[in-house]
Amino acid sequence: MLPNIFHNGRQLSRIFQCTLQMYRQRSLTTGVNEIPLSKDHYNIKRGPFSVATDADIKHFESILPAGNQILLGLEETVGYNRDYFKYVRGLGAIVLKPRTSEEVSNIMRYCNNKRLAVSVFGGNTGVCGGSIPVFDEIILSMDLMNRVESIDKYSGILVCESGCVLGKLEEELAMEGMMMPLDLGAKNSCQIGGNVSTNAGGIRLLRYGSLHGSVLGLEVVLADGTIMDLMSNVKKDNTGYHLKHMFIGSEGTLGVITRVAIACPTATKTQNVLFLGLRDYSSVLRTFLECKACLGEILTSFELIDRDALECCIEHLRTSSPIGSYPFYVLIETTGSSKQHDAEKIRDYLEHVIGHGIVSDGVVTNEPSKITKLWQLRERIPEATYSNNFCLTFDLSLPLKNFYDIVPAMKDRVGHLVKLVCGFGHIGDSNIHLNIAGDELTPEIAELIDPFVYEFTRKLRGSISAEHGIGLLKPKYLKYSKSAESIDLMKQLKLVLDRNGILNPYKVLC
Amino acid sequence: MLPNIFHNGRQLSRIFQCTLQMYRQRSLTTGVNEIPLSKDHYNIKRGPFSVATDADIKHFESILPAGNQILLGLEETVGYNRDYFKYVRGLGAIVLKPRTSEEVSNIMRYCNNKRLAVSVFGGNTGVCGGSIPVFDEIILSMDLMNRVESIDKYSGILVCESGCVLGKLEEELAMEGMMMPLDLGAKNSCQIGGNVSTNAGGIRLLRYGSLHGSVLGLEVVLADGTIMDLMSNVKKDNTGYHLKHMFIGSEGTLGVITRVAIACPTATKTQNVLFLGLRDYSSVLRTFLECKACLGEILTSFELIDRDALECCIEHLRTSSPIGSYPFYVLIETTGSSKQHDAEKIRDYLEHVIGHGIVSDGVVTNEPSKITKLWQLRERIPEATYSNNFCLTFDLSLPLKNFYDIVPAMKDRVGHLVKLVCGFGHIGDSNIHLNIAGDELTPEIAELIDPFVYEFTRKLRGSISAEHGIGLLKPKYLKYSKSAESIDLMKQLKLVLDRNGILNPYKVLC
Repeated sequence: MLPNIFHNGRQLSRIFQCTLQMYRQRSLTTGVNEIPLSKDHYNIKRGPFSVATDADIKHFESILPAGNQILLGLEETVGYNRDYFKYVRGLGAIVLKPRTSEEVSNIMRYCNNKRLAVSVFGGNTGVCGGSIPVFDEIILSMDLMNRVESIDKYSGILVCESGCVLGKLEEELAMEGMMMPLDLGAKNSCQIGGNVSTNAGGIRLLRYGSLHGSVLGLEVVLADGTIMDLMSNVKKDNTGYHLKHMFIGSEGTLGVITRVAIACPTATKTQNVLFLGLRDYSSVLRTFLECKACLGEILTSFELIDRDALECCIEHLRTSSPIGSYPFYVLIETTGSSKQHDAEKIRDYLEHVIGHGIVSDGVVTNEPSKITKLWQLRERIPEATYSNNFCLTFDLSLPLKNFYDIVPAMKDRVGHLVKLVCGFGHIGDSNIHLNIAGDELTPEIAELIDPFVYEFTRKLRGSISAEHGIGLLKPKYLKYSKSAESIDLMKQLKLVLDRNGILNPYKVLC
Repeated sequence: MLPNIFHNGRQLSRIFQCTLQMYRQRSLTTGVNEIPLSKDHYNIKRGPFSVATDADIKHFESILPAGNQILLGLEETVGYNRDYFKYVRGLGAIVLKPRTSEEVSNIMRYCNNKRLAVSVFGGNTGVCGGSIPVFDEIILSMDLMNRVESIDKYSGILVCESGCVLGKLEEELAMEGMMMPLDLGAKNSCQIGGNVSTNAGGIRLLRYGSLHGSVLGLEVVLADGTIMDLMSNVKKDNTGYHLKHMFIGSEGTLGVITRVAIACPTATKTQNVLFLGLRDYSSVLRTFLECKACLGEILTSFELIDRDALECCIEHLRTSSPIGSYPFYVLIETTGSSKQHDAEKIRDYLEHVIGHGIVSDGVVTNEPSKITKLWQLRERIPEATYSNNFCLTFDLSLPLKNFYDIVPAMKDRVGHLVKLVCGFGHIGDSNIHLNIAGDELTPEIAELIDPFVYEFTRKLRGSISAEHGIGLLKPKYLKYSKSAESIDLMKQLKLVLDRNGILNPYKVLC
């Protein structure tokens, strides 16, 4: 059930509707037909696109002659018209599943000529509605483009099609003693093409950096069907403008990524997880600084959990904390190549931070089952907070000195009106998730939150979407992280690459 | 003295002149006026730009009111009109030295309105003539924009102006326990803005990745004077298109980089260098694979030197090899956080590779003076090969399996006509430097080399300029690494960002 506020949404003032637009409760038990259509819920006007006819479908059949490449009708395409979190719902009644870049090219050329809008669909694990149609866009599913083309263990480069599932790639690489440079909770569903299109982050970013560093080459099919060969077999290439980066993080609005070349690190052999309790935020910062200095090259993740977040998670999981109660916890993961060396580094580090009173308490383990349990205390916080009637989540980047300030600030504003205001996230990457949960999301609460959160972030020159992207849900918030000149240049690039605006319309730019 | 072939150049066929264009000998003792003017030597036609008048100079004086911000006349500007390697010479008689982004903006807006061409000048350490004017372009020197704005040791982010010298930034960061993610031989001259504009690589790339991963934000002044604020205080930001990457590696043709935010690693505490001898190239590959597995997280550099390159270097430096004579040598550098752990890892690694007969001989040291001596055997090879009458150098990326094939292939073609064909470089980054040196560069030799080297590289989908860029010298070779569609898109982007083509004309795209 959606909370009342949404049932009565139409009675609210227009300003308030806008404010609440992206704050619909995620209720995972909601039936598909109970999810409001995005076009209605977000009040979107259909673009000047054609409506697909039987003749168009016939043409698609000629482009995709093998069986099982086309789905027709809303019943068949239902899984392609809603996201996992049920934020959005579309009406795309045609799903096309190309097997080759040439098929993608033929589809795009035809759609461009016919002014048919296209929505690109990967593993459907996005959280901003970026891959779900809004109206009747043709859905281009990359499911069948899932071949691993080569793994060069010498150069450390994987080349594959964009529909490959991240977890499968990880398995293939493991057989060659390699690993993917990114790891995500959604790895068993998400596709590498979607990861690249959304510049996915994840829990290894602190160690292995962003996809802008790892992605070596892309093949992209442009809106007009041009196959843009930006592939590379090598790590360094300074010949002309570095075009591939335009497509990394552009959420399928500038082109369809069909192939990917990515630099992959050598697999690590050891894994340790530390779970530490700290008495205040300045201790968190000192712990992080000491961690970077002492654990240096074996540091992989440094995650923050505040007391309210941990307590909510523990209650939800019906488990207990491995240590006493503290205002802050950090989860540190190390990976390396020598069990003994890592253990010694960790021992020295703990002696130092506990000896100097920076860390109050902690546990450390290298046992896989215990590692999983400790990671659950971080990874299952979102699920725990979502068990409330409503839960708003923000994915912010903030400079570390002021990283946590948003949580007490928000508690001051709405703490008396909600059940939970908590902060957690990838502090090693300056990325905090702020969750606010309670029984009923009233206009009063919503107005105390938005635009405060965004203005707070803008003042610190942070990002209002650190890793989740913009998609359908956040275009109107773009201005809080991007200058007018930047947004104008984005629109010019969109025009250069997709003159008719047929690719993922209504997303990213509004 | 230039070799005869160039003195007689005009008597050669036009085709041969083209072939030889970029192969002029680097003779570092050549006087400035002996360097042919780029416009003549590379046969370039002046673009449809205005010629600066006294009124223009008056206007520049009003934009730059403080003293020492303007140099006038070819005698004053001589240092801005030739590169270190004396490949190129220009005729820019006006040097402007803005102190602020606003001054850059005012200059660009004025030049754009008046159709005055502008050449952006950093530390003048480029090797493709990218920062030297060809005709009378206004020279925009970034020398005075050299302020460090902030160092955030918690987030690990440096913010500075683009004229900061790399080595100075390294010093400032060291005081905070941090380091730059890149290191270059030219670090005491080159500027961070130039590093970013050329996507500089260097000897730490294997460990810390490319600038596309490290650069978090840029401020760029566009050709029309727009100040494009793409700065960031944080590591993750997925709000809209990732515009800053358009300017990384575009060699000043799309905008003037004025400020940089860059992620900087924690300083390492230990340093070791291994120098190993190997009997064949397959042993080099095995050594690299084992190195990645055993040394893993402490591996910083993995460099290749072949026998001819080492012998040339040793003779030039009047030194001796630390080990016997082998077809191949690798120089491995490790940096880490524990002297003892690093030593143990290295010991285990050497026992393994020597025990298994992969490596034939080797030395290892952690003494700074010995480390410097070993690095000289790699870093001074170029200087040694340039001591020949002529020396051609190629900066190629090739997949590691075929990395060294270019050297014997070239020996087969020209070995009997020249004194030296050798290969060395950043094998850890798939980047080989192929040098060919001898007494006289004849048309026969040149035609055996070009286009063979480029076609060889294209067949393997390598890069014809791994780290040096395109600049003035290589636009016509771009097609060997980039598709026609890519080059067309580059030209469209240039039009979007610099409609009048006033920024660094004649460079990158021709």
